[in-house]
Amino acid sequence: MENVSNDTVIKGTAVVSGVRYAKAVWISPRPELPQAGAVIEESQREAELERFNEAADAVSERLRERSTKAEGAASEVLKATAGMVNDRGWRKAVHKGIKGGHPADYAVVAATTKFVTMFEAAGGVMAERTTDLRDIRDRVIAELRGEQEPGLPEVDEQVVLFADDLSPADTAALNTDYFVGLVTELGGPTSHTAIIARQLNVPCIVAVGEKVHKIEAGEPVMVDGALGTVTLGADPETARAAEQESKMLAERIAQWRGPAQTKDGHKVQLLANVQDGKAARIAATQSQAEGIGLFRTELCFLTATEEPSVAEQAEVYKKVLEQFPESKVVVRSLDAGSDKPVPFASMADEMNPALGVRGLRVARANEALLTRQLDAVAKAVEELDRADNAPTWVMAPMVATAREAKWFAGLCAERGLTAGAMIEVPAASLMADKLMPHLDFVSIGTNDLTQYTMAADRMSPQLAYLTDPWQPAVLRLIDHTCKEGRKYDTAVGVCGEAAADPLLACVLTGLGVNSLSCASTAIAGVGAQLAAVDLETCQRAAAAALDAEGATEARAAVRDIIQPA
Amino acid sequence: MENVSNDTVIKGTAVVSGVRYAKAVWISPRPELPQAGAVIEESQREAELERFNEAADAVSERLRERSTKAEGAASEVLKATAGMVNDRGWRKAVHKGIKGGHPADYAVVAATTKFVTMFEAAGGVMAERTTDLRDIRDRVIAELRGEQEPGLPEVDEQVVLFADDLSPADTAALNTDYFVGLVTELGGPTSHTAIIARQLNVPCIVAVGEKVHKIEAGEPVMVDGALGTVTLGADPETARAAEQESKMLAERIAQWRGPAQTKDGHKVQLLANVQDGKAARIAATQSQAEGIGLFRTELCFLTATEEPSVAEQAEVYKKVLEQFPESKVVVRSLDAGSDKPVPFASMADEMNPALGVRGLRVARANEALLTRQLDAVAKAVEELDRADNAPTWVMAPMVATAREAKWFAGLCAERGLTAGAMIEVPAASLMADKLMPHLDFVSIGTNDLTQYTMAADRMSPQLAYLTDPWQPAVLRLIDHTCKEGRKYDTAVGVCGEAAADPLLACVLTGLGVNSLSCASTAIAGVGAQLAAVDLETCQRAAAAALDAEGATEARAAVRDIIQPA
Repeated sequence: MENVSNDTVIKGTAVVSGVRYAKAVWISPRPELPQAGAVIEESQREAELERFNEAADAVSERLRERSTKAEGAASEVLKATAGMVNDRGWRKAVHKGIKGGHPADYAVVAATTKFVTMFEAAGGVMAERTTDLRDIRDRVIAELRGEQEPGLPEVDEQVVLFADDLSPADTAALNTDYFVGLVTELGGPTSHTAIIARQLNVPCIVAVGEKVHKIEAGEPVMVDGALGTVTLGADPETARAAEQESKMLAERIAQWRGPAQTKDGHKVQLLANVQDGKAARIAATQSQAEGIGLFRTELCFLTATEEPSVAEQAEVYKKVLEQFPESKVVVRSLDAGSDKPVPFASMADEMNPALGVRGLRVARANEALLTRQLDAVAKAVEELDRADNAPTWVMAPMVATAREAKWFAGLCAERGLTAGAMIEVPAASLMADKLMPHLDFVSIGTNDLTQYTMAADRMSPQLAYLTDPWQPAVLRLIDHTCKEGRKYDTAVGVCGEAAADPLLACVLTGLGVNSLSCASTAIAGVGAQLAAVDLETCQRAAAAALDAEGATEARAAVRDIIQPA
Repeated sequence: MENVSNDTVIKGTAVVSGVRYAKAVWISPRPELPQAGAVIEESQREAELERFNEAADAVSERLRERSTKAEGAASEVLKATAGMVNDRGWRKAVHKGIKGGHPADYAVVAATTKFVTMFEAAGGVMAERTTDLRDIRDRVIAELRGEQEPGLPEVDEQVVLFADDLSPADTAALNTDYFVGLVTELGGPTSHTAIIARQLNVPCIVAVGEKVHKIEAGEPVMVDGALGTVTLGADPETARAAEQESKMLAERIAQWRGPAQTKDGHKVQLLANVQDGKAARIAATQSQAEGIGLFRTELCFLTATEEPSVAEQAEVYKKVLEQFPESKVVVRSLDAGSDKPVPFASMADEMNPALGVRGLRVARANEALLTRQLDAVAKAVEELDRADNAPTWVMAPMVATAREAKWFAGLCAERGLTAGAMIEVPAASLMADKLMPHLDFVSIGTNDLTQYTMAADRMSPQLAYLTDPWQPAVLRLIDHTCKEGRKYDTAVGVCGEAAADPLLACVLTGLGVNSLSCASTAIAGVGAQLAAVDLETCQRAAAAALDAEGATEARAAVRDIIQPA
């Protein structure tokens, strides 16, 4: 169905822009897992046990050492992974296997399988830890065999890293002084690899597919993270020039200062997505964000075993609000369900959790959970006594009908809060004329809107070709929402990965979006791009994207109209 | 969030029309499950084992007896359920529990839990059997305790059956001479209960919610399956008159003869949905269907352990085609994936199978599976030498992009087949202008289109209020598709539950849909309704539905314009 037109250029999904020219390295392969069968004689079992303990200690020590070199979240991930190698339950299960006669490597496999099964049965957050479990299994087995540790290779020059996909531990240990580009076979624009690449600001291409295996270790490659291309056998001089130019662009981006506007002065609010006070502080101090466009309130719920009190919630919300004492903050009410189960709001097992009881739907059966949260937001606002030019807006996730919008807006009005809705269910966009009369603003969540419009799971690596925010079908829903927004005088924002893509941000501006909210790190890139175009060009780009046959064609058409800044 | 405005009228989702006035009966409750703890003394365990065997035998015998009285699929379901009670693995697991000291009832619970977990882990068809497993567990426990068997009560007069939801075994044993109406708390328009009710043509209301428990056994109720209302304390005379009138309408429907057209002669093709030769024969001989609007080809794939050969497939397709030698037949290519796993087209475990690799997407990685099927359709057509007025059309499920449509149409063209696409992904409707130039026709699958547009699982009982084909958001996508169809001269059909609803069929006709395809049993009801209205009234109804705030409002607005036939 798809052809590679030029065999020296391989394409994938563009995630983080930037051109790099360096040697390719492949992530070290996972060890082959041993089969059952071999038996260790009784006299040697004690020695085998010792051998396992030493290997496990070595792996744990190595991870811990790396954790001290890493910073922030990366350090935490590595520390947690190291901790799993020392988990008493897991070690005991391995010991038991060895005492029963299994070789150490097989005992590691068996014990890990047992825990993976348990974790998967538990579901939710526990199930997510199974990737880490398999990761430590492979590390310990490699150590036992004296093989190279799976995962990141040791390098002493700049390289582009190739992998099927990256594990959390791999990305956490990534030193961007050496690993200057990332290319993966799987993943999508919202996959783990993509999110980390964006945080680290490393040029990145995902979902390249099987053809990525044409690239062999040691070959020099040119990676263009904006075009999503990997070029083999590029002319070194041209490649280095392109790399240089891309770094200069990065420089210009670093020098960009907000507030954002097009070359001809059309203003677009650039806001940050945050999940806690720490992220809000980073947005306030290290980015040009004019406020918070999406405050995800899940964090303080997901980690709690029981519902935090109104006072406790208010404290958490204040930590975010106080970072922007004179700017807009948009709070999203609890978006639980789907891949974010909340322990105290019991949810049924669902066949398709992304199409299940999630977002505002959870509150339908448990209205008090929502009203307590709204009370907490109102309390936080009151206690901080925010300025008039610092409005606090509240929006509900997964609104699908006018009735839901009206109900939510009523609850907000009772508490003096400004109410809005996420537009992430296709129906919410299609029915914008019926929703908007109840609301003060809407914010388009492009990740979920794309998932539902294309009927393709945003986490599915096989369907990454569909879950692309450049899909004209999605852009048409955004266009429709903007048009209705103008009719009903309702502000229309976009939060989601689309807002972080500088070229797509121009298209959204051309469609008439009033604000863009994305990761802090992406704001300057978007701002610098907007500063380089005028509104009429954005509108021409938008028209071309709307009329394109597909996502690839839309990207190409816009690239013909707008040169990257 | 929702209010019951009148406490003597309770509303749910209307599924099968018809008014009935009769006493309410409740399905017998499930027994309370025993807790672990009690221990049977060793000396009595043999007797406990005997007690279990006798109870299980009694349940099995009773189900088998009922199976001999039932017919067709119902008989098969009962026989299969009886067979599960005799399953050696399950019985052995119960025996083991009793021998270990558990009381028989607890041993039954533990053994069943074990099997349910296994089946759920296996997924797919196996997972669907867990409802049956829990059903036999409850029957055996009730038998052990000498309690009334859970499920259908014994009755000797006409009654309306109330239940939380119906199990397959319950519906299979339903004698419609006595059970003249069905009302359930849960379920949706495409739930198991709804599908069976439609097959049996029993007035039915689902998704009433908790308020259904206001109805007590023995109270006379009036059920209106068209309005979705249950009236308590209705005036008996009025209720009996309404029942009489509804039976006369049924009579008029029985006398209706096709082909379908509005009062003023606007033609709409009424077609049947079938899955095999037997269903096609019923459509041809017992309904007024003008052809087949949806031939689901999954059946011969789902039951096979390896892919049927081209010749074998052609034989299956001929059995359907030859039932309509002079009429249109629309063949849908394999719609595997999601809840329909195909053993030989291996699929990954997916977090959200409804948003996964299903329909045409399966063929993307396995084009030969699709081309062999197209070869088989071409072979069937050639060997039957069908008349010119009997076109054979082929359509692909889950098309989302113009590129997919073009690819599929190309494969069809190579084989001389007329190509179309299902419109069931929102993007396919939104991008109709880009898809249609590649296609000869489209067919809107309202069940899936509603699921994705509302981002709500069509199987979720909690979300039945969203997965309603009367949602104006869905109607707007249908409207848009019809408008583009007229521009590009592309025929637009509807297949799915929406086409079976007589009032909604008028709306669809008003929107400009050219053909409606539904279950054979629903065709006459739709035809009789269309015969009672003119096109302009259908268009007014369509405009009112498009402009309604929600599904309930759309239904009410149309009911104000069109009186049920």
